[in-house]
Amino acid sequence: MHNRRVLWQEGRVNRILLQRNELRYDGTFAPEDARAQHILKVLHGTLGQSVKLGIVDGPKGVGVVGQVDGARVVMACTWDPAPPPRPRVDLLLALPRPKVMRRLWAPLASLGVGTIIITNAAKVERNYFDASALDEATWTPLLLEGLTQASDTLLPRVHVRRRLRPLVEDELAQLSDAHIRLVADPAGPARLIETRVAPSERILLAVGPEGGWTPFEVELLQTRGFSMVSVGTRILRTDTACLALLGILSEIAAA
Amino acid sequence: MHNRRVLWQEGRVNRILLQRNELRYDGTFAPEDARAQHILKVLHGTLGQSVKLGIVDGPKGVGVVGQVDGARVVMACTWDPAPPPRPRVDLLLALPRPKVMRRLWAPLASLGVGTIIITNAAKVERNYFDASALDEATWTPLLLEGLTQASDTLLPRVHVRRRLRPLVEDELAQLSDAHIRLVADPAGPARLIETRVAPSERILLAVGPEGGWTPFEVELLQTRGFSMVSVGTRILRTDTACLALLGILSEIAAA
Repeated sequence: MHNRRVLWQEGRVNRILLQRNELRYDGTFAPEDARAQHILKVLHGTLGQSVKLGIVDGPKGVGVVGQVDGARVVMACTWDPAPPPRPRVDLLLALPRPKVMRRLWAPLASLGVGTIIITNAAKVERNYFDASALDEATWTPLLLEGLTQASDTLLPRVHVRRRLRPLVEDELAQLSDAHIRLVADPAGPARLIETRVAPSERILLAVGPEGGWTPFEVELLQTRGFSMVSVGTRILRTDTACLALLGILSEIAAA
Repeated sequence: MHNRRVLWQEGRVNRILLQRNELRYDGTFAPEDARAQHILKVLHGTLGQSVKLGIVDGPKGVGVVGQVDGARVVMACTWDPAPPPRPRVDLLLALPRPKVMRRLWAPLASLGVGTIIITNAAKVERNYFDASALDEATWTPLLLEGLTQASDTLLPRVHVRRRLRPLVEDELAQLSDAHIRLVADPAGPARLIETRVAPSERILLAVGPEGGWTPFEVELLQTRGFSMVSVGTRILRTDTACLALLGILSEIAAA
Protein backbone atom coordinates (compact mmCIF):
# COMPACT_ATOMS: atom_id res chain seq x y z
CA MET A 1 0.00 0.00 0.00
CA HIS A 2 2.86 2.38 0.66
CA ASN A 3 4.05 2.49 -2.91
CA ARG A 4 5.43 5.17 -5.16
CA ARG A 5 2.50 7.44 -4.28
CA VAL A 6 4.59 8.62 -1.37
CA LEU A 7 6.83 10.51 -3.75
CA TRP A 8 3.99 11.87 -5.81
CA GLN A 9 1.85 12.90 -2.96
CA GLU A 10 0.91 16.48 -2.40
CA GLY A 11 1.44 16.67 1.30
CA ARG A 12 4.73 16.61 3.11
CA VAL A 13 6.15 13.55 4.79
CA ASN A 14 6.22 14.59 8.42
CA ARG A 15 6.26 11.02 9.70
CA ILE A 16 6.98 7.82 7.78
CA LEU A 17 4.28 5.22 8.32
CA LEU A 18 4.56 1.46 8.25
CA GLN A 19 2.26 -1.47 8.83
CA ARG A 20 2.91 -3.53 11.94
CA ASN A 21 3.81 -6.60 9.86
CA GLU A 22 6.62 -4.68 8.19
CA LEU A 23 8.63 -4.84 11.42
CA ARG A 24 11.26 -7.55 11.25
CA TYR A 25 11.72 -10.19 13.95
CA ASP A 26 14.60 -8.25 15.46
CA GLY A 27 12.42 -5.14 15.73
CA THR A 28 14.15 -3.28 12.92
CA PHE A 29 12.37 -1.67 9.98
CA ALA A 30 14.13 -1.91 6.63
CA PRO A 31 12.22 -0.26 3.78
CA GLU A 32 13.62 -0.25 0.28
CA ASP A 33 10.71 1.52 -1.41
CA ALA A 34 9.76 5.18 -1.68
CA ARG A 35 10.11 5.55 2.08
CA ALA A 36 13.78 4.56 1.86
CA GLN A 37 14.17 6.98 -1.04
CA HIS A 38 12.63 9.72 1.07
CA ILE A 39 15.07 9.06 3.92
CA LEU A 40 18.06 8.99 1.58
CA LYS A 41 17.17 11.81 -0.80
CA VAL A 42 14.93 14.23 1.05
CA LEU A 43 16.25 13.77 4.58
CA HIS A 44 19.79 13.07 3.31
CA GLY A 45 19.80 10.16 5.72
CA THR A 46 23.13 9.12 7.16
CA LEU A 47 24.17 6.51 9.72
CA GLY A 48 22.93 7.40 13.19
CA GLN A 49 20.25 9.77 11.92
CA SER A 50 16.85 9.72 13.63
CA VAL A 51 13.71 9.44 11.53
CA LYS A 52 10.14 9.92 12.77
CA LEU A 53 8.18 6.70 12.28
CA GLY A 54 4.65 5.56 13.04
CA ILE A 55 2.86 2.23 12.95
CA VAL A 56 -0.52 2.52 11.24
CA ASP A 57 -3.13 2.35 14.03
CA GLY A 58 -0.29 1.97 16.49
CA PRO A 59 2.26 4.10 18.34
CA LYS A 60 4.58 6.79 17.06
CA GLY A 61 8.29 6.13 17.33
CA VAL A 62 11.77 6.87 16.12
CA GLY A 63 14.02 4.91 13.82
CA VAL A 64 17.79 5.29 13.92
CA VAL A 65 19.56 4.54 10.67
CA GLY A 66 21.96 1.69 11.37
CA GLN A 67 22.78 0.57 7.89
CA VAL A 68 22.30 1.73 4.31
CA ASP A 69 22.44 -1.12 1.87
CA GLY A 70 21.92 0.13 -1.69
CA ALA A 71 18.30 1.29 -1.77
CA ARG A 72 17.54 -0.26 1.60
CA VAL A 73 17.67 1.62 4.88
CA VAL A 74 17.80 -0.43 8.08
CA MET A 75 16.59 1.30 11.24
CA ALA A 76 16.50 0.28 14.90
CA CYS A 77 13.16 1.40 16.31
CA THR A 78 11.80 2.60 19.61
CA TRP A 79 8.08 3.14 20.11
CA ASP A 80 5.87 5.20 22.38
CA PRO A 81 4.15 3.06 25.04
CA ALA A 82 0.71 3.67 23.46
CA PRO A 83 -0.87 4.96 20.27
CA PRO A 84 -1.91 8.64 20.19
CA PRO A 85 -5.42 9.43 21.45
CA ARG A 86 -8.23 8.84 18.99
CA PRO A 87 -9.59 12.03 17.34
CA ARG A 88 -12.72 13.17 19.13
CA VAL A 89 -14.77 13.95 16.06
CA ASP A 90 -16.60 11.52 13.76
CA LEU A 91 -18.17 12.55 10.46
CA LEU A 92 -21.44 11.50 8.85
CA LEU A 93 -21.15 12.79 5.31
CA ALA A 94 -23.69 12.77 2.49
CA LEU A 95 -21.61 11.70 -0.49
CA PRO A 96 -20.43 14.69 -2.54
CA ARG A 97 -19.43 14.61 -6.20
CA PRO A 98 -16.65 12.07 -6.86
CA LYS A 99 -14.03 14.73 -7.58
CA VAL A 100 -14.80 16.50 -4.31
CA MET A 101 -14.86 13.22 -2.37
CA ARG A 102 -11.52 12.16 -3.78
CA ARG A 103 -9.99 15.44 -2.75
CA LEU A 104 -11.39 15.23 0.77
CA TRP A 105 -9.81 11.98 1.97
CA ALA A 106 -6.31 13.31 2.69
CA PRO A 107 -7.39 16.54 4.46
CA LEU A 108 -9.93 14.63 6.56
CA ALA A 109 -7.17 12.34 7.80
CA SER A 110 -4.89 15.36 8.35
CA LEU A 111 -7.42 17.20 10.46
CA GLY A 112 -8.14 14.02 12.41
CA VAL A 113 -11.44 12.15 12.21
CA GLY A 114 -12.13 8.97 14.17
CA THR A 115 -14.77 7.44 11.91
CA ILE A 116 -16.04 8.59 8.51
CA ILE A 117 -19.49 7.35 7.55
CA ILE A 118 -20.44 8.06 3.95
CA THR A 119 -24.12 7.91 3.19
CA ASN A 120 -26.85 8.74 0.75
CA ALA A 121 -29.40 11.57 0.86
CA ALA A 122 -32.23 12.73 -1.37
CA LYS A 123 -29.98 15.27 -3.08
CA VAL A 124 -27.07 12.92 -3.71
CA GLU A 125 -26.98 11.71 -7.31
CA ARG A 126 -27.13 7.93 -7.46
CA ASN A 127 -24.21 7.46 -9.82
CA TYR A 128 -21.87 9.09 -7.28
CA PHE A 129 -21.82 5.75 -5.47
CA ASP A 130 -20.30 4.03 -8.50
CA ALA A 131 -17.24 6.26 -8.51
CA SER A 132 -13.79 4.93 -7.73
CA ALA A 133 -13.42 7.61 -5.04
CA LEU A 134 -15.43 5.20 -2.89
CA ASP A 135 -13.08 2.24 -3.34
CA GLU A 136 -11.03 1.27 -0.34
CA ALA A 137 -8.08 1.00 -2.74
CA THR A 138 -8.58 4.70 -3.50
CA TRP A 139 -9.17 6.04 -0.04
CA THR A 140 -6.57 4.05 1.92
CA PRO A 141 -3.48 5.61 0.29
CA LEU A 142 -5.10 9.06 0.45
CA LEU A 143 -5.90 8.68 4.15
CA LEU A 144 -2.33 7.48 4.76
CA GLU A 145 -1.07 10.52 2.84
CA GLY A 146 -3.08 12.75 5.17
CA LEU A 147 -1.71 10.98 8.27
CA THR A 148 1.84 11.20 6.92
CA GLN A 149 1.34 14.95 6.49
CA ALA A 150 -0.24 15.43 9.93
CA SER A 151 2.31 13.21 11.69
CA ASP A 152 -0.46 10.98 13.01
CA THR A 153 -0.90 7.19 12.92
CA LEU A 154 -4.61 6.57 13.50
CA LEU A 155 -6.32 5.70 10.24
CA PRO A 156 -9.94 6.88 10.19
CA ARG A 157 -12.38 3.99 10.01
CA VAL A 158 -14.55 4.28 6.93
CA HIS A 159 -18.06 2.93 6.43
CA VAL A 160 -20.16 3.39 3.30
CA ARG A 161 -23.94 2.99 3.66
CA ARG A 162 -26.20 3.58 0.71
CA ARG A 163 -29.41 3.92 2.72
CA LEU A 164 -29.67 6.79 5.15
CA ARG A 165 -32.72 5.73 7.11
CA PRO A 166 -31.67 2.25 8.24
CA LEU A 167 -28.22 3.65 8.92
CA VAL A 168 -29.53 6.40 11.19
CA GLU A 169 -32.28 4.33 12.80
CA ASP A 170 -30.48 1.07 13.40
CA GLU A 171 -26.76 1.17 12.93
CA LEU A 172 -25.32 4.54 13.81
CA ALA A 173 -24.59 3.81 17.48
CA GLN A 174 -22.50 0.80 16.47
CA LEU A 175 -20.46 2.80 13.97
CA SER A 176 -19.85 5.87 16.13
CA ASP A 177 -19.70 5.97 19.92
CA ALA A 178 -20.02 9.78 19.96
CA HIS A 179 -22.61 11.03 22.43
CA ILE A 180 -22.89 14.52 20.99
CA ARG A 181 -24.60 14.47 17.62
CA LEU A 182 -24.70 17.67 15.58
CA VAL A 183 -26.14 18.54 12.21
CA ALA A 184 -24.99 21.75 10.58
CA ASP A 185 -27.96 23.71 9.27
CA PRO A 186 -28.49 27.43 8.64
CA ALA A 187 -31.74 27.24 10.63
CA GLY A 188 -29.99 25.81 13.68
CA PRO A 189 -30.98 27.64 16.87
CA ALA A 190 -27.54 27.29 18.49
CA ARG A 191 -24.23 28.32 17.03
CA LEU A 192 -21.69 25.56 16.43
CA ILE A 193 -18.93 27.53 18.12
CA GLU A 194 -20.95 27.68 21.33
CA THR A 195 -21.00 23.89 21.62
CA ARG A 196 -19.48 22.76 24.89
CA VAL A 197 -17.79 19.39 25.12
CA ALA A 198 -16.60 17.60 28.23
CA PRO A 199 -13.04 16.24 27.99
CA SER A 200 -14.18 12.66 27.57
CA GLU A 201 -16.97 13.30 25.08
CA ARG A 202 -16.84 12.58 21.38
CA ILE A 203 -18.80 14.39 18.63
CA LEU A 204 -20.51 13.07 15.52
CA LEU A 205 -21.04 15.81 12.93
CA ALA A 206 -23.48 15.35 10.04
CA VAL A 207 -22.70 17.29 6.85
CA GLY A 208 -25.40 17.32 4.19
CA PRO A 209 -25.24 17.10 0.41
CA GLU A 210 -24.53 20.17 -1.72
CA GLY A 211 -28.24 20.89 -2.06
CA GLY A 212 -28.79 20.43 1.69
CA TRP A 213 -30.71 17.84 3.70
CA THR A 214 -34.46 17.64 3.00
CA PRO A 215 -36.86 18.50 5.86
CA PHE A 216 -37.59 14.78 6.20
CA GLU A 217 -33.89 14.02 6.59
CA VAL A 218 -33.37 16.78 9.15
CA GLU A 219 -36.31 15.42 11.14
CA LEU A 220 -34.95 11.88 10.91
CA LEU A 221 -31.61 13.09 12.28
CA GLN A 222 -33.29 15.13 15.02
CA THR A 223 -35.37 12.19 16.23
CA ARG A 224 -32.10 10.28 16.57
CA GLY A 225 -30.50 12.86 18.81
CA PHE A 226 -28.87 15.27 16.37
CA SER A 227 -28.98 18.92 17.43
CA MET A 228 -29.09 21.57 14.75
CA VAL A 229 -26.25 24.06 14.89
CA SER A 230 -25.68 26.96 12.54
CA VAL A 231 -22.41 28.17 11.09
CA GLY A 232 -22.78 31.45 9.27
CA THR A 233 -24.89 32.24 6.25
CA ARG A 234 -22.53 31.42 3.44
CA ILE A 235 -23.21 28.45 1.18
CA LEU A 236 -20.05 26.36 1.01
CA ARG A 237 -18.92 23.54 -1.21
CA THR A 238 -18.90 20.24 0.71
CA ASP A 239 -15.13 20.07 0.93
CA THR A 240 -14.76 23.66 2.12
CA ALA A 241 -17.57 23.15 4.64
CA CYS A 242 -16.08 19.93 6.01
CA LEU A 243 -12.65 21.44 6.56
CA ALA A 244 -13.98 24.62 8.16
CA LEU A 245 -16.40 22.70 10.40
CA LEU A 246 -13.82 20.10 11.45
CA GLY A 247 -11.38 22.92 12.17
CA ILE A 248 -13.90 24.49 14.52
CA LEU A 249 -14.92 21.22 16.20
CA SER A 250 -11.34 20.03 16.69
CA GLU A 251 -10.55 23.26 18.48
CA ILE A 252 -13.70 23.08 20.59
CA ALA A 253 -12.95 19.48 21.54
CA ALA A 254 -9.36 20.35 22.44
CA ALA A 255 -10.38 23.35 24.56
CA MET B 1 -14.41 37.57 -17.37
CA HIS B 2 -17.64 35.69 -16.75
CA ASN B 3 -17.11 33.27 -19.57
CA ARG B 4 -17.78 29.60 -20.10
CA ARG B 5 -15.97 28.80 -16.86
CA VAL B 6 -19.29 29.27 -15.13
CA LEU B 7 -20.54 26.03 -16.61
CA TRP B 8 -17.35 24.16 -15.89
CA GLN B 9 -16.90 25.40 -12.43
CA GLU B 10 -16.87 23.08 -9.49
CA GLY B 11 -19.01 25.07 -7.14
CA ARG B 12 -22.70 25.66 -7.44
CA VAL B 13 -24.24 28.84 -8.78
CA ASN B 14 -26.09 30.17 -5.77
CA ARG B 15 -26.13 33.75 -7.07
CA ILE B 16 -25.40 35.00 -10.57
CA LEU B 17 -22.84 37.80 -10.54
CA LEU B 18 -22.46 40.68 -12.96
CA GLN B 19 -20.22 43.69 -13.30
CA ARG B 20 -21.87 47.07 -12.73
CA ASN B 21 -21.23 48.11 -16.34
CA GLU B 22 -23.25 45.16 -17.56
CA LEU B 23 -26.46 46.85 -16.40
CA ARG B 24 -28.26 48.50 -19.30
CA TYR B 25 -29.46 52.11 -19.25
CA ASP B 26 -32.99 51.01 -18.38
CA GLY B 27 -31.67 49.06 -15.37
CA THR B 28 -32.24 45.65 -16.93
CA PHE B 29 -29.62 42.91 -17.14
CA ALA B 30 -29.62 40.83 -20.31
CA PRO B 31 -26.92 38.15 -20.39
CA GLU B 32 -26.58 35.83 -23.34
CA ASP B 33 -23.55 33.90 -22.13
CA ALA B 34 -23.18 31.01 -19.70
CA ARG B 35 -25.23 32.90 -17.13
CA ALA B 36 -28.22 32.96 -19.49
CA GLN B 37 -27.65 29.26 -20.15
CA HIS B 38 -27.66 28.60 -16.43
CA ILE B 39 -30.98 30.43 -16.01
CA LEU B 40 -32.55 28.61 -18.95
CA LYS B 41 -31.17 25.11 -18.47
CA VAL B 42 -30.40 24.65 -14.78
CA LEU B 43 -33.05 26.93 -13.29
CA HIS B 44 -35.49 26.15 -16.14
CA GLY B 45 -36.13 29.88 -16.28
CA THR B 46 -39.55 31.01 -17.41
CA LEU B 47 -41.18 34.42 -17.71
CA GLY B 48 -41.78 35.99 -14.33
CA GLN B 49 -39.23 33.79 -12.56
CA SER B 50 -37.00 35.40 -9.92
CA VAL B 51 -33.25 34.89 -10.10
CA LYS B 52 -30.73 35.81 -7.39
CA LEU B 53 -28.28 38.37 -8.75
CA GLY B 54 -25.33 40.29 -7.35
CA ILE B 55 -23.19 43.13 -8.60
CA VAL B 56 -19.50 42.42 -8.06
CA ASP B 57 -18.40 44.63 -5.13
CA GLY B 58 -21.96 45.95 -4.98
CA PRO B 59 -25.35 44.96 -3.62
CA LYS B 60 -27.25 41.72 -3.93
CA GLY B 61 -30.54 41.80 -5.77
CA VAL B 62 -33.18 39.95 -7.70
CA GLY B 63 -33.82 39.75 -11.42
CA VAL B 64 -37.26 38.91 -12.78
CA VAL B 65 -37.22 37.27 -16.19
CA GLY B 66 -39.20 39.57 -18.50
CA GLN B 67 -38.20 38.24 -21.87
CA VAL B 68 -36.34 35.28 -23.34
CA ASP B 69 -34.93 36.05 -26.72
CA GLY B 70 -33.09 33.05 -28.15
CA ALA B 71 -30.05 32.64 -25.89
CA ARG B 72 -30.65 36.00 -24.24
CA VAL B 73 -32.51 36.45 -20.95
CA VAL B 74 -33.74 39.94 -20.09
CA MET B 75 -34.35 40.65 -16.42
CA ALA B 76 -35.76 43.65 -14.55
CA CYS B 77 -33.62 44.14 -11.44
CA THR B 78 -34.10 45.38 -7.91
CA TRP B 79 -31.13 45.84 -5.61
CA ASP B 80 -30.52 45.92 -1.87
CA PRO B 81 -29.85 49.45 -0.61
CA ALA B 82 -26.23 48.59 0.24
CA PRO B 83 -23.60 45.93 -0.43
CA PRO B 84 -23.23 43.15 2.18
CA PRO B 85 -20.83 43.84 5.06
CA ARG B 86 -17.17 43.29 4.31
CA PRO B 87 -15.73 40.02 5.73
CA ARG B 88 -13.96 40.68 9.00
CA VAL B 89 -10.90 38.56 8.33
CA ASP B 90 -7.88 39.42 6.16
CA LEU B 91 -5.19 36.89 5.27
CA LEU B 92 -1.41 37.28 5.03
CA LEU B 93 -0.30 34.12 3.29
CA ALA B 94 3.20 32.85 2.53
CA LEU B 95 2.87 31.60 -1.03
CA PRO B 96 2.26 27.83 -1.15
CA ARG B 97 3.02 25.56 -4.09
CA PRO B 98 1.28 26.73 -7.27
CA LYS B 99 -1.13 23.78 -7.35
CA VAL B 100 -2.19 24.45 -3.77
CA MET B 101 -2.48 28.20 -4.39
CA ARG B 102 -4.63 27.67 -7.46
CA ARG B 103 -6.96 25.45 -5.50
CA LEU B 104 -7.26 27.93 -2.65
CA TRP B 105 -8.68 30.95 -4.48
CA ALA B 106 -12.28 29.77 -4.76
CA PRO B 107 -12.64 28.45 -1.19
CA LEU B 108 -11.03 31.61 0.22
CA ALA B 109 -13.65 33.71 -1.54
CA SER B 110 -16.39 31.31 -0.41
CA LEU B 111 -15.39 31.51 3.24
CA GLY B 112 -15.12 35.30 2.97
CA VAL B 113 -11.85 37.17 3.18
CA GLY B 114 -11.59 40.95 2.93
CA THR B 115 -8.02 41.23 1.68
CA ILE B 116 -5.58 38.52 0.66
CA ILE B 117 -1.90 39.47 0.82
CA ILE B 118 0.43 36.91 -0.74
CA THR B 119 4.04 37.18 0.29
CA ASN B 120 7.42 35.51 0.38
CA ALA B 121 9.14 33.74 3.27
CA ALA B 122 12.45 31.94 3.75
CA LYS B 123 10.83 28.57 3.11
CA VAL B 124 8.92 29.59 -0.02
CA GLU B 125 10.62 28.39 -3.19
CA ARG B 126 11.42 31.30 -5.48
CA ASN B 127 10.00 29.79 -8.64
CA TYR B 128 6.55 29.65 -7.02
CA PHE B 129 6.22 33.35 -7.81
CA ASP B 130 6.50 32.67 -11.54
CA ALA B 131 3.46 30.43 -11.58
CA SER B 132 0.27 31.38 -13.39
CA ALA B 133 -1.67 30.81 -10.16
CA LEU B 134 -0.48 34.31 -9.26
CA ASP B 135 -1.87 36.00 -12.37
CA GLU B 136 -4.88 38.21 -11.85
CA ALA B 137 -6.36 36.53 -14.93
CA THR B 138 -6.17 33.24 -13.02
CA TRP B 139 -7.39 34.33 -9.65
CA THR B 140 -10.24 36.65 -10.67
CA PRO B 141 -12.48 33.95 -12.21
CA LEU B 142 -11.67 31.60 -9.34
CA LEU B 143 -12.57 34.22 -6.73
CA LEU B 144 -15.79 34.96 -8.63
CA GLU B 145 -16.52 31.24 -8.68
CA GLY B 146 -16.15 31.19 -4.89
CA LEU B 147 -18.46 34.19 -4.47
CA THR B 148 -21.01 32.65 -6.83
CA GLN B 149 -20.98 29.53 -4.65
CA ALA B 150 -21.20 31.45 -1.38
CA SER B 151 -23.89 33.83 -2.66
CA ASP B 152 -21.69 36.82 -1.87
CA THR B 153 -20.66 39.82 -3.99
CA LEU B 154 -17.55 41.24 -2.33
CA LEU B 155 -14.44 40.27 -4.25
CA PRO B 156 -11.42 39.88 -1.96
CA ARG B 157 -8.74 42.45 -2.71
CA VAL B 158 -5.49 40.72 -3.62
CA HIS B 159 -1.95 42.06 -3.19
CA VAL B 160 1.22 40.16 -4.08
CA ARG B 161 4.43 41.30 -2.38
CA ARG B 162 7.66 39.46 -3.00
CA ARG B 163 9.54 40.88 -0.05
CA LEU B 164 8.23 40.09 3.42
CA ARG B 165 10.21 42.57 5.46
CA PRO B 166 9.34 45.83 3.68
CA LEU B 167 5.77 44.58 3.43
CA VAL B 168 5.47 43.97 7.15
CA GLU B 169 7.49 46.99 8.23
CA ASP B 170 6.15 49.65 5.90
CA GLU B 171 3.09 48.69 3.98
CA LEU B 172 0.89 46.34 5.94
CA ALA B 173 -1.28 48.97 7.62
CA GLN B 174 -2.20 50.41 4.22
CA LEU B 175 -3.19 47.02 2.83
CA SER B 176 -5.19 45.79 5.82
CA ASP B 177 -7.00 47.94 8.38
CA ALA B 178 -7.35 45.01 10.80
CA HIS B 179 -6.38 45.90 14.36
CA ILE B 180 -6.05 42.34 15.59
CA ARG B 181 -3.03 40.64 14.08
CA LEU B 182 -2.54 36.93 14.65
CA VAL B 183 0.11 34.47 13.56
CA ALA B 184 -0.69 30.79 13.86
CA ASP B 185 2.21 28.95 15.47
CA PRO B 186 2.35 25.72 17.50
CA ALA B 187 4.36 27.58 20.16
CA GLY B 188 1.68 30.25 20.57
CA PRO B 189 0.84 30.84 24.25
CA ALA B 190 -2.85 31.54 23.58
CA ARG B 191 -5.28 29.34 21.74
CA LEU B 192 -6.82 30.75 18.57
CA ILE B 193 -10.30 29.76 19.64
CA GLU B 194 -9.97 31.86 22.78
CA THR B 195 -9.46 35.04 20.73
CA ARG B 196 -12.08 37.65 21.59
CA VAL B 197 -13.14 40.15 18.96
CA ALA B 198 -15.31 43.24 19.45
CA PRO B 199 -18.13 43.61 16.91
CA SER B 200 -16.35 46.36 15.00
CA GLU B 201 -12.89 44.79 14.95
CA ARG B 202 -11.24 43.14 11.99
CA ILE B 203 -8.57 40.39 12.11
CA LEU B 204 -5.46 39.86 10.01
CA LEU B 205 -4.28 36.24 10.15
CA ALA B 206 -0.77 35.27 9.03
CA VAL B 207 -0.34 31.72 7.70
CA GLY B 208 3.22 30.55 7.13
CA PRO B 209 4.80 28.44 4.41
CA GLU B 210 4.65 24.65 4.49
CA GLY B 211 7.96 24.47 6.34
CA GLY B 212 6.85 27.15 8.82
CA TRP B 213 8.06 30.69 9.49
CA THR B 214 11.69 31.04 10.58
CA PRO B 215 12.40 32.42 14.08
CA PHE B 216 13.47 35.69 12.41
CA GLU B 217 10.16 35.92 10.58
CA VAL B 218 8.12 35.20 13.69
CA GLU B 219 10.04 37.91 15.53
CA LEU B 220 9.49 40.35 12.67
CA LEU B 221 5.76 39.68 12.80
CA GLN B 222 5.69 39.96 16.58
CA THR B 223 7.44 43.34 16.58
CA ARG B 224 4.71 44.52 14.23
CA GLY B 225 1.89 43.56 16.53
CA PHE B 226 1.17 39.96 15.62
CA SER B 227 0.21 37.73 18.55
CA MET B 228 1.09 34.07 18.38
CA VAL B 229 -1.86 31.74 18.69
CA SER B 230 -1.80 27.96 18.57
CA VAL B 231 -4.23 25.62 16.87
CA GLY B 232 -3.59 22.01 17.75
CA THR B 233 -0.52 19.94 17.15
CA ARG B 234 -1.20 18.52 13.72
CA ILE B 235 0.88 19.63 10.76
CA LEU B 236 -1.51 20.67 7.99
CA ARG B 237 -1.05 21.40 4.32
CA THR B 238 -1.41 25.13 3.63
CA ASP B 239 -4.81 24.80 2.01
CA THR B 240 -6.23 22.62 4.79
CA ALA B 241 -4.79 24.96 7.41
CA CYS B 242 -6.21 28.08 5.74
CA LEU B 243 -9.72 26.68 5.48
CA ALA B 244 -9.75 25.33 9.03
CA LEU B 245 -8.33 28.57 10.47
CA LEU B 246 -10.65 30.82 8.48
CA GLY B 247 -13.57 28.65 9.54
CA ILE B 248 -12.65 29.20 13.18
CA LEU B 249 -11.99 32.95 12.81
CA SER B 250 -15.16 33.60 10.84
CA GLU B 251 -17.17 31.99 13.60
CA ILE B 252 -15.31 33.89 16.31
CA ALA B 253 -15.82 37.18 14.47
CA ALA B 254 -19.52 36.45 13.96
CA ALA B 255 -20.06 35.54 17.60
